Amino acid sequence: MSVKDILEGKLTGKEVELKGWLVTKRSSGGVQFLMIRDGTGTIQSTIHKDEVNEKIFQETDKLTQESSLALKGIVKVDKRAPGGYEIRVNDLQIVQLAVQDYPLSKKAHGIDFLMDWRHLWIRSPRQIAILKIRAEVVKACRDFLDEQGFTLTDSPIFTPSSVEGVATLFETPYFGDKAFLTQSGQLYVEATMAAFGKVYCFGPTFRAEKSKTPRHLTEFWMVEPEMAFFTFEDNLRLQEEMLTYIVKKTLEKRSKEFEVLKRDTKPLKKVEPPFDRISYTEAIGMLQKDGFSIEWGEDLGLPHEKAISLKFEKPVFVHRYPARTRAFYMQPDPEDPKVALCADLMAPEGYGEIIGGSERIYDLKLLEQRIEEFGLPKKAYEWYLALRKFGSVPHSGFGLGIERTVTWICKLKHIRETIPFPRTTTRIYP
Amino acid sequence: MSVKDILEGKLTGKEVELKGWLVTKRSSGGVQFLMIRDGTGTIQSTIHKDEVNEKIFQETDKLTQESSLALKGIVKVDKRAPGGYEIRVNDLQIVQLAVQDYPLSKKAHGIDFLMDWRHLWIRSPRQIAILKIRAEVVKACRDFLDEQGFTLTDSPIFTPSSVEGVATLFETPYFGDKAFLTQSGQLYVEATMAAFGKVYCFGPTFRAEKSKTPRHLTEFWMVEPEMAFFTFEDNLRLQEEMLTYIVKKTLEKRSKEFEVLKRDTKPLKKVEPPFDRISYTEAIGMLQKDGFSIEWGEDLGLPHEKAISLKFEKPVFVHRYPARTRAFYMQPDPEDPKVALCADLMAPEGYGEIIGGSERIYDLKLLEQRIEEFGLPKKAYEWYLALRKFGSVPHSGFGLGIERTVTWICKLKHIRETIPFPRTTTRIYP
Repeated sequence: MSVKDILEGKLTGKEVELKGWLVTKRSSGGVQFLMIRDGTGTIQSTIHKDEVNEKIFQETDKLTQESSLALKGIVKVDKRAPGGYEIRVNDLQIVQLAVQDYPLSKKAHGIDFLMDWRHLWIRSPRQIAILKIRAEVVKACRDFLDEQGFTLTDSPIFTPSSVEGVATLFETPYFGDKAFLTQSGQLYVEATMAAFGKVYCFGPTFRAEKSKTPRHLTEFWMVEPEMAFFTFEDNLRLQEEMLTYIVKKTLEKRSKEFEVLKRDTKPLKKVEPPFDRISYTEAIGMLQKDGFSIEWGEDLGLPHEKAISLKFEKPVFVHRYPARTRAFYMQPDPEDPKVALCADLMAPEGYGEIIGGSERIYDLKLLEQRIEEFGLPKKAYEWYLALRKFGSVPHSGFGLGIERTVTWICKLKHIRETIPFPRTTTRIYP
Repeated sequence: MSVKDILEGKLTGKEVELKGWLVTKRSSGGVQFLMIRDGTGTIQSTIHKDEVNEKIFQETDKLTQESSLALKGIVKVDKRAPGGYEIRVNDLQIVQLAVQDYPLSKKAHGIDFLMDWRHLWIRSPRQIAILKIRAEVVKACRDFLDEQGFTLTDSPIFTPSSVEGVATLFETPYFGDKAFLTQSGQLYVEATMAAFGKVYCFGPTFRAEKSKTPRHLTEFWMVEPEMAFFTFEDNLRLQEEMLTYIVKKTLEKRSKEFEVLKRDTKPLKKVEPPFDRISYTEAIGMLQKDGFSIEWGEDLGLPHEKAISLKFEKPVFVHRYPARTRAFYMQPDPEDPKVALCADLMAPEGYGEIIGGSERIYDLKLLEQRIEEFGLPKKAYEWYLALRKFGSVPHSGFGLGIERTVTWICKLKHIRETIPFPRTTTRIYP
């Protein structure tokens, strides 16, 4: 028996047994009002002095916030109760009386305090709502790809080399050798793609960047699809479809959570293919016109991405960045080789990049040349180069950052609330 | 258009365009027989000298194993062709002519050679079958738990402390501090459980054990459900249901892959609740009777688990191990506190442990006492102890090892084939 079942009206008039935690308590004229949550929802339970034995009423009086308890009672419709139902309690047992002074009982706390108490903070309605939406986003990604015939092929975490240079890699001693924690599973899904056609990996990735921004974590989850014979254009289309699916499923399944967050879902309902597309060159022009001092060839930072994002109602692709500022494996545009066939997808409402993707170089010679130009150790990429020797095919793929996507969907100011236990440059506890 | 669609009879008589890789080629009386795979299956394609222009026939002659190509042709029923269909080719283009001497073209290779070429080895029918089954097992775990009302809450990879001691932990410098790679997400799902009731984490875990055995990897994936108010008995029942679901779904969806592996699926079809259960004490008695020199209190090794497993047709729980040999957080049996309310599930057919689970201690004092007895640093567990101060509840959970489960389901001799890029004490390449 769960609060969810009760709130769906399935148990009205019935005797139920409920196990959960005390959220709040108040007392009024011989009646105790307890708000109880069980992980599926929260429900009002009332204890009437003249309906239960005195011991139970006294026990209830002792109850502290977050105490765990088991109760029995009858489910009644009550329009005054939040959710429209209440349990009229006839028996109650305290499972564990929580220690006095629940650290999070006050309304306002500094962020460091909340993060120190993250293991309890996750019990608050807002955190529960965000993490429920996160779980739905993860499920939507997997369901979409599985339905489209993709095969999940997990990429390794321990890697001997890096995708984007070693400066921002975590490193660990490894039986007399050393291993680096992956920044992206992409190179490996390029290998499995040649076995399965359409594949994805989905796991944690790691960046030892010193960036302290509202959109950086040192440990974050990424889903990375890779598709054989997909052109740059096919790739963008798949991204549109997948993100639309994610948003639709989340809106459909988590409407209550959006209410808890007071998230206006109107902008989310506009997410539908096709998304707008502008080239990097156009983006630079727009930014210069807006007064940003940025030159062609420079990276877009968060302020730039934000400015661009705010010009569009839907997610917008910024495509064809300067090749030399992008990863070595990106296919140059045949019509203008100084830009790459890549695109970052900017989430709307002032959020920036949530997806990065590209067509990959499949010509052996060109790839070897790029590895040399980028000053990368060729030996470490020998296995990757072999993929271009044996049945190389045009292919494309992308990486979608789960936490950034959830930050936008929930319209949060900071990424740290979108993962159960965030890891930043200054935090690995709890 | 995919080989799968063709083999399902959806395209018979139609003109198709197919992109894929050459598996094998033979020629007989003016006809070239090409076996082509596209990631969804393999199909015979024939090129008749008198039906295509000479250039195409000559090109085909040059084709090397694993070359990538695009072809057009008509789908025909042909009982002699593997799968019952073939494509009668009228146009063919080589996408990339694979370098001569595909490293894996010979039939027999040593395991080190195969592992060095893992990025190509995964293209072989056997490896494709195993990894398809792996993907199905992963999906079944997630689907089962999602359908049962569980919430996915990812546990962190970077941790400040360890579940089972630091001896077997990988460690990384972390911005002037150090972090350890998780061995288990359990402690963290115990925290999220108090927010969501039923939760699971599902991610890679790491053990720096020097064990070189057919069932150890340094990096492996684990699904770890944790349930509030679940007794030891509830926990075992959930494990039975979940494993049964996994096996049934995999049998249902991956029958072709089992054929490729020549896996006799009869033993798998017997997997149904209830599983057999024996206590650790009974297991020791059995082993002694069988001539093993093992005393009560000693750990079960692979030979012991194997011997027990072979006595049962279905998976068997070995429960109530000596408490002092098990993790500090396990609830002692109230009827015999020298054993813990824990169980390992042994897969049949001589495979050993694939699941480990237990009821957890929820009493603060007892948990503090155990942390002291085990000589663990109390400070590192402060946040974990807080879970027992604020609404502690009886709870249970378990961890299912994906690779071990797949090893058994596929009836493999070694765990290394069950993950795309295995990591062992001697291998982090490719």
